[in-house]
Amino acid sequence: MTTKKLGKQTVAFASPPSIAGHANVVGKKEGEGPLRASFDLINQDDTFGESSWEKAESAMQKLALQNALDKAKQAASTLDFIFAGDLLNQCIASSFAIRGQGVPFFGLYGACSTMAESLTLASMMLDGGFGEWAAAMASSHFCSAERQYRTPLEYGGQRTPTAQWTVTGAGAVVLAREGDGPYITHATVGKIVDKGIKDANNMGAAMAPAAYDTLSTHFSDTGRKPSYYDLIVTGDLGTLGKGIVLDFFHKDGVDLQNLDDCGVLIYDAQGQDVHCGGSGCGCSAAVLTGFLLNGMREGRWKKILFCGTGALLSPTSTMQGESIPGICHAVAISTQKGG
Amino acid sequence: MTTKKLGKQTVAFASPPSIAGHANVVGKKEGEGPLRASFDLINQDDTFGESSWEKAESAMQKLALQNALDKAKQAASTLDFIFAGDLLNQCIASSFAIRGQGVPFFGLYGACSTMAESLTLASMMLDGGFGEWAAAMASSHFCSAERQYRTPLEYGGQRTPTAQWTVTGAGAVVLAREGDGPYITHATVGKIVDKGIKDANNMGAAMAPAAYDTLSTHFSDTGRKPSYYDLIVTGDLGTLGKGIVLDFFHKDGVDLQNLDDCGVLIYDAQGQDVHCGGSGCGCSAAVLTGFLLNGMREGRWKKILFCGTGALLSPTSTMQGESIPGICHAVAISTQKGG
Repeated sequence: MTTKKLGKQTVAFASPPSIAGHANVVGKKEGEGPLRASFDLINQDDTFGESSWEKAESAMQKLALQNALDKAKQAASTLDFIFAGDLLNQCIASSFAIRGQGVPFFGLYGACSTMAESLTLASMMLDGGFGEWAAAMASSHFCSAERQYRTPLEYGGQRTPTAQWTVTGAGAVVLAREGDGPYITHATVGKIVDKGIKDANNMGAAMAPAAYDTLSTHFSDTGRKPSYYDLIVTGDLGTLGKGIVLDFFHKDGVDLQNLDDCGVLIYDAQGQDVHCGGSGCGCSAAVLTGFLLNGMREGRWKKILFCGTGALLSPTSTMQGESIPGICHAVAISTQKGG
Repeated sequence: MTTKKLGKQTVAFASPPSIAGHANVVGKKEGEGPLRASFDLINQDDTFGESSWEKAESAMQKLALQNALDKAKQAASTLDFIFAGDLLNQCIASSFAIRGQGVPFFGLYGACSTMAESLTLASMMLDGGFGEWAAAMASSHFCSAERQYRTPLEYGGQRTPTAQWTVTGAGAVVLAREGDGPYITHATVGKIVDKGIKDANNMGAAMAPAAYDTLSTHFSDTGRKPSYYDLIVTGDLGTLGKGIVLDFFHKDGVDLQNLDDCGVLIYDAQGQDVHCGGSGCGCSAAVLTGFLLNGMREGRWKKILFCGTGALLSPTSTMQGESIPGICHAVAISTQKGG
């Protein structure tokens, strides 16, 4: 057992990496929601000037990265590595966004947990002594996701009550080995948890057991109580998934009063017709890089546990009758280096 | 600049991780090729007892991992992390293989560079002090790849002369922080290189510039000459891509006599009707975990530079007229800890 390891799944960084810059880009619908003031760039037609939805998604990642680098007062050439991923087949949103950057690149696939996965790996890389600067990034686009996972937009398919709405958005974080924070102090890396849910229109229920597993492990590995954090935020379980996580903890005698969810936060449940809330890699990426990190900088929260949740299914696995494997990675972020 | 970094892209491990176990699984065609003696398990109908090609691919990963763990005399529960990926949409071969393992998991997408990407990240994790044991793993399956990227098998599509044959195979490496080697001493992390090749049936030409870029960078970052290595092996450029890399170096006045390619090695070019050779994440994974690492253990080679090459396209990006972004990660493996 190394000194940086707490329990089996949690890493405690010896030199917590500092968040030097963070930025996001979203679409029109997200810009009309309750978090509108926290977004850096809101596009009005969701094309970002491109000729396809996939290219639009790549454009979002490029804009978010450039903006995060600008805020960190760094050029892309400063970056030692970029860690990025998205939901598209073969992760083309990321590859085509990073193609022109000239930076060593690690491609990731963690479904909607990608923002937390990329932050975890970038932090391990910096704390491990392999570089000074890294970027972590993720995106999703409602239109590219709908036609790939569900039906063409023109079909106008009816959505089920448990469905979530894929966020059009991207978020990028620039991390530095030294800086003024906020700091990434811990990461709890998730195992795959699959409780047999087969309904691809009910991702919240499929991912909730993974979120419960990783959160419970984080608390036992670190010895911290949930109340240690000013905010515990999952992303993206939506209203139904969030309720399931609360139920699980309630059965353990724990009342998670400080739990919220990026998929619940990003849309107005009453006015925006999104059923169970937002989803997609871009949801937690945009909420983290806006509402959450802005809030930390403004003094609203000092300690946050950011828990990216992913459903590792594909349309093929669903058609072949498989259940939905879920995963959740938790990242502890603090304004203090000591956690 | 940290002491573990050489130049901009190369990492030199302070405590080189040791390869404690390695194993592979392949299909019938690979088992009839020139490397047949180096495979641990050869399946005769490529189904591995499963009802779909995608499930067969997952079964291969599970078998390769179990066999690699057995050789390392370890249980899955020993592993701190698994790093894995594949070519399928949403990387379901990996997710479903890892679902039952109960091990913290990082999902990767690096196309055919995935074996090198997973080895690099697993080595960074161990050398960074975040654990004692890790697994790195990748797979591909001819039948799942054909129907996803090209045409249904039943269609019997004609293949072009520059085409490569997707390997049905999986390879897994179990890495330990301490051990008797072979050791992972360095890794050069690739940038995306795209020279405008748009022919999805000519991946070798699309990936060759990335291989040249990473190899040149590795030599300049480390100060090593190509002749330092007993063998430099790319995977999977095939015959055409390998020729392009040789040409690039020839123009620099360098004669890479010790270069070979996993895609060239795995099939008999004359007798197996594979055109330019093998491809797929499983190609370099199966060649590394059999022919190459067995050869090192038998004393055939002391120092190898293993260079995974990936083409980061998708059928959608090709249909939208995009060129093919290539990437290459190079991993230096030595029987000596000092490199």
